[in-house]
Amino acid sequence: MTSPTYADHFSIHNLPYGIASSPSHPTPQCATRLNNTVIFLSDLQSAGLFSSIPSLPENIFSNTTLNPFASLPRDTQTQVRHVLQSILQTSSSLPESSTADITTVTMHLPVSIPAFTDYSASLPHNQHAGQIILNHPAPPPAFFHFPIGYAGRASTISISGNPVTRPSGHFYDRTDPSFPQTKKVIFGPSRALDYELELGIIIGKPLPRGQGLKAQDAEEHIFGLVILNDWSARDIQGLEMMPLGPLNGKNFATTISPWIVTLDALQPFKTSGPEPRVSLPPHLQDPGQFSYDISVVTELEAGTEKGASSSTVLARGNAKDLFWSIRQMCAHLASTGCDLRTGDILGTGTVSGEEEGSYGCLLEVTEGGKKKVKLVDGEERGYLVDGDVVRLTAWAGDGVGFGECVGQILPARD
Amino acid sequence: MTSPTYADHFSIHNLPYGIASSPSHPTPQCATRLNNTVIFLSDLQSAGLFSSIPSLPENIFSNTTLNPFASLPRDTQTQVRHVLQSILQTSSSLPESSTADITTVTMHLPVSIPAFTDYSASLPHNQHAGQIILNHPAPPPAFFHFPIGYAGRASTISISGNPVTRPSGHFYDRTDPSFPQTKKVIFGPSRALDYELELGIIIGKPLPRGQGLKAQDAEEHIFGLVILNDWSARDIQGLEMMPLGPLNGKNFATTISPWIVTLDALQPFKTSGPEPRVSLPPHLQDPGQFSYDISVVTELEAGTEKGASSSTVLARGNAKDLFWSIRQMCAHLASTGCDLRTGDILGTGTVSGEEEGSYGCLLEVTEGGKKKVKLVDGEERGYLVDGDVVRLTAWAGDGVGFGECVGQILPARD
Repeated sequence: MTSPTYADHFSIHNLPYGIASSPSHPTPQCATRLNNTVIFLSDLQSAGLFSSIPSLPENIFSNTTLNPFASLPRDTQTQVRHVLQSILQTSSSLPESSTADITTVTMHLPVSIPAFTDYSASLPHNQHAGQIILNHPAPPPAFFHFPIGYAGRASTISISGNPVTRPSGHFYDRTDPSFPQTKKVIFGPSRALDYELELGIIIGKPLPRGQGLKAQDAEEHIFGLVILNDWSARDIQGLEMMPLGPLNGKNFATTISPWIVTLDALQPFKTSGPEPRVSLPPHLQDPGQFSYDISVVTELEAGTEKGASSSTVLARGNAKDLFWSIRQMCAHLASTGCDLRTGDILGTGTVSGEEEGSYGCLLEVTEGGKKKVKLVDGEERGYLVDGDVVRLTAWAGDGVGFGECVGQILPARD
Repeated sequence: MTSPTYADHFSIHNLPYGIASSPSHPTPQCATRLNNTVIFLSDLQSAGLFSSIPSLPENIFSNTTLNPFASLPRDTQTQVRHVLQSILQTSSSLPESSTADITTVTMHLPVSIPAFTDYSASLPHNQHAGQIILNHPAPPPAFFHFPIGYAGRASTISISGNPVTRPSGHFYDRTDPSFPQTKKVIFGPSRALDYELELGIIIGKPLPRGQGLKAQDAEEHIFGLVILNDWSARDIQGLEMMPLGPLNGKNFATTISPWIVTLDALQPFKTSGPEPRVSLPPHLQDPGQFSYDISVVTELEAGTEKGASSSTVLARGNAKDLFWSIRQMCAHLASTGCDLRTGDILGTGTVSGEEEGSYGCLLEVTEGGKKKVKLVDGEERGYLVDGDVVRLTAWAGDGVGFGECVGQILPARD
């Protein structure tokens, strides 16, 4: 599971935030990245390089999570970005030993995550899933009225590179001769383990309880985006979802990419989103360019020993195809008076397009495991097998990308 | 909204834990309670009264949440209980000014809550809800195989006494002349606001990710129980639940009682639970006395000015009727490898019996608002109206009770 470094994702136009440690900086702390150079921000602040920003608290970058910095007003974060861009034009102005090569650095979870809400904002994904599971392509009844979603498990979110152990759970035994006449329920390792390629919204400045939020005002509360893999055990999920939604089919693992790409960096890639199909209440109205043109790719590598050479591209999609905007997702959650906390993650749901080759999960690619997909080395997959590596990448263009979100499947525990 | 003190719930056989502040102890800190006397535990530890327990960390009770104490092994907590019972036999041994009368004390959220998972473990509740909503009393397909549940919102959990603002959301307009032929969706203040009487399990000693848990071993990880009101907007919930479960219909507020009653205090009230209907995997097997004989009562007071005299008892139930045990609820969540964190709350779901008069929510009491219930002052209710006070109480007997979990409905925000 060797990974490329994606140096070209991290130009001076990106400057994402992450939590890094290195031999010279053994305590995890706030960092940014330029090409393959990781820059420890606390060193820059100590050297007085941010002294032109009075609203930036002292020692804000020596925290072990980005939450304190993320909670600041967007404007302060934007000022930090401008100072960084100015400093990094001339690398000679960086304090000695404030940098490290990406290959010598360990990345850590960038934020402490109070809550994880996962939406399902792609119309094609909902249509395909409906067709495959219910034999009917109509999206759920609420789909065009608001972004549909569920609460996920925040405690099992890890960063890219962490393996994912196949979960055990209850599901219908489809190998039983009497299936589907008799639907025998068994407990054991999932036989339908899947990935879901999503983007994750990281909440920045908190929204107090009871305040509500208009979609148009939501960017003030969004620190940035990551790639998110919402690993899903389709068989466990299938049995448990009626009527309370997914729980154990999803709670075993979620993976995010380590670098949070800010909305400032993504600004040039804003593009028009789909037109609403029904009239929306004021808080969900979001005219103008509210989607992001972010290309996404799913690759699968069979087993460890074969390395990247046997990587198969399973899908190429784009986040601009999502029916609901990240701003609308924030506004919907807050519309009941629910608060948003710094570090909360809101997943977009699987990013799938209409066309074959643009589907963000195996449920869609293989039609529920029935239509096996061929890998480049001749193997076939319905769902994931032990040893498989799933590599999700995303980039907006012009030196602004997310790197990767990667995870390998380990066998179920005894 | 004046409340009784429930002194008889808090005998020396109870000794629950909470977070309290008072004029003499302005910083919220760990406390226990005997009858109407609140005892600040940090004062007792400073006076050396727990010196016989070497496994009790110093200053553990001066924390502003119970999480550090709750995370200790159950055995240490049991030793603290024994010391307290011994000290409190003779109140003369209490340090001066370590106590305060309950009426002079402010209670605070007892734990920091990393996650909230809500089960639906009552068979009658599922049968009634199925009959009312789907015109079919069969429980969901998974009901007898494992406790069904969903992830809730931890950040909007408050303690008893906090008001609940009526949430706004999307729902079908049932007043539209063409309903149900045309199902018009509108956005506005919920017209079907309900309570759900539940118990909440507070996780104590954490369970690491990947370890799994047998129901029989789960008590080591349970710090205690509270009363929990899972406020629910039935109309918002009804539209959004298909297929991802409840989100905005529940995320606006959850209320818990302030005192955490330990499993040691509840030990004498263990009783046999229902027999499994299907064969269970080893981690869910839980033979013997695994239910708790805990009586629960729901009262409703119409408006503020009328006070307790116009309180109407809407239901009397018992937690021993739950189909799944609190130990099985912990084991199910952990069965995928999911961790349990100190302070996590697992709700049991609505505690409802089979008989009329034992239903734990208005959905059941009024059959979805259609069969209005008469209050003692002659008013009627389908669902809650602004100003209504919902008071939930629970006790096991012999001086061991939970006090109350109370909340008043405020009008929707503009």
